[in-house]
Amino acid sequence: MELSTAAMADARALHARLTKPPGSLGRLEDVGVQLAGIAGECPPPMPAPAAVAVFAGDHGVVRAGVTPWPQEVTAQMVANFCAGGAAINALARQVDARLVVVDVGVAGDLEPHPMLLGRKVRRGTDDLSAGPAMSQDDARRAWAVGEEVAALLIADGARLLVTGDMGIGNTTPAAAVIAALTGRPAADCTGLGTGVDAATLAHKTEIVAAAVSRASRRVHRSEMSGKPAENVVGEIGGLEIAALAGFVYGGASARVPVVVDGVIALAGALAAEAARPGVVAACIAGHRSTEPGATVALEHLGLEPLLDLDLRLGEGTGACLAVPLVQAAARVLREMATFDAAGVKER
Amino acid sequence: MELSTAAMADARALHARLTKPPGSLGRLEDVGVQLAGIAGECPPPMPAPAAVAVFAGDHGVVRAGVTPWPQEVTAQMVANFCAGGAAINALARQVDARLVVVDVGVAGDLEPHPMLLGRKVRRGTDDLSAGPAMSQDDARRAWAVGEEVAALLIADGARLLVTGDMGIGNTTPAAAVIAALTGRPAADCTGLGTGVDAATLAHKTEIVAAAVSRASRRVHRSEMSGKPAENVVGEIGGLEIAALAGFVYGGASARVPVVVDGVIALAGALAAEAARPGVVAACIAGHRSTEPGATVALEHLGLEPLLDLDLRLGEGTGACLAVPLVQAAARVLREMATFDAAGVKER
Repeated sequence: MELSTAAMADARALHARLTKPPGSLGRLEDVGVQLAGIAGECPPPMPAPAAVAVFAGDHGVVRAGVTPWPQEVTAQMVANFCAGGAAINALARQVDARLVVVDVGVAGDLEPHPMLLGRKVRRGTDDLSAGPAMSQDDARRAWAVGEEVAALLIADGARLLVTGDMGIGNTTPAAAVIAALTGRPAADCTGLGTGVDAATLAHKTEIVAAAVSRASRRVHRSEMSGKPAENVVGEIGGLEIAALAGFVYGGASARVPVVVDGVIALAGALAAEAARPGVVAACIAGHRSTEPGATVALEHLGLEPLLDLDLRLGEGTGACLAVPLVQAAARVLREMATFDAAGVKER
Repeated sequence: MELSTAAMADARALHARLTKPPGSLGRLEDVGVQLAGIAGECPPPMPAPAAVAVFAGDHGVVRAGVTPWPQEVTAQMVANFCAGGAAINALARQVDARLVVVDVGVAGDLEPHPMLLGRKVRRGTDDLSAGPAMSQDDARRAWAVGEEVAALLIADGARLLVTGDMGIGNTTPAAAVIAALTGRPAADCTGLGTGVDAATLAHKTEIVAAAVSRASRRVHRSEMSGKPAENVVGEIGGLEIAALAGFVYGGASARVPVVVDGVIALAGALAAEAARPGVVAACIAGHRSTEPGATVALEHLGLEPLLDLDLRLGEGTGACLAVPLVQAAARVLREMATFDAAGVKER
């Protein structure tokens, strides 16, 4: 997707005529210009209603001891989402966003629920510290789930997509994907996740480094297809990361802006951008997670986050909190009076 | 106002039981704890609906050439607020906040409007570079207007107050009040406002320095009453700054949280805190304005802003954008399930 330079120029020109000192809305003006560029019109359409998709998957690498949380918490949290009791539920209600949960690869069985889309590609990944996390075919299927969910939400009326994730252990594959796709050392990309001790962090970093090294050998070998970036996600990523890549791509393809959350979503966005360059133009970084890989990915993608509130929860919480800012950016261009119309003197 | 330590301890304990890794909502958790402390109960009541009060006043110091904007723009912008065309209108609609405009000292005459509260104390201040901006009695009357408006909005149902301001030239008195009340040099507190050139900035800084110096001599002289902090606002401040001090105090007295905007509101909050220590406990800093005096005031008050988006518009825009974050902080404590209730295993 390419931004419309004409619509962006119109948005900049409109900003200069609105009843405020030029540039005085700072970053909000930049977001408004981007929204115009994505939509190809000025003023941009309201990026509302918003819809959050929480992609849930499990990770074989938990067997290698990268997190203190038991794997069954992924399924328990999916039940909690469906019951409305998780952080993302409270925040989605706050910003009037629809919330759907997508089982793209939870290990356990899940009770059906109207909020839950059953799209299980497989019951979690294999242990990426011992071999490929999944087959390339599974990764492609998970990507397709993400694309399908984006299309489905847009068909239902969503005009702003918000990335969410749930998966015990998923900061390890996210760090691996980010290190592999940015070329940065594992130690720069691996963090405390939802809370590990120093020894576990060192162990986790070693696992990420070894996985990246193996992936860089394998994904370039002739037996794998000619798509290294996509193959990285299959080799050392996760099902929800692949789905998030497809989801970001799906939003961008439909010219619907995507608010990207923390380190898991950014791993997906990196994969999407590597596979389909230009996708990042539709992305708005919701926040800066405390996870170091998030900052590495943001820098690589050239994204400046809207919020920096020391969040490290995932689920889409940081992106969800940024939704009113994105909507405000459009509203300013759509609703503010010009100096001429309001009869306000310019300096 | 003192925060309830019992309610804050309850909020911290509740946060530890909610279905998320402890501390993973970062600053949002701190705001939730503060809201519990302000209300004296846990979970805190929803800080909704929000109400923005834009206090408008004029400034004699514009005659000294501190801004390129003509003074009549204050009145024109009040008309723009009433017509719904200003930035604060768009943002208040975005966050479902009521908006009122208070004429506490606009120089010109204003058309009556249901949104406009006519509380003109006087037709703008005198030129603070030549003598006192107003009498101490006028400053007290403006403070009382702010207190009255806070009480009125709360009586009408507001449970979150948002500070707003309009007044061509008002970054000069704000810088002067901040410099005088923090003891920091004028150059650290004086900025570009809505956009001046380097020569005007140097001139503005000299005016601020001279005003602070005069104020520090005058407000401690025996002929003035024993309230130096309040007198500073009369001597070198502005009518909307005095009103904002009263508004912040009014919110705090009623134990209603107040989201504080940029440099003008922070000058008012500093004056309120100096006059009535403890008021700041009810304040939440909405954002970090690019105006340097804002950062000086935030540091002095011990406030860490929620947003940092390079805004420098005023009107309450930055504070308004933070409203959903504050409401989300309460919502998390009010609506999230505990590990026990949700049947989610703790690590």
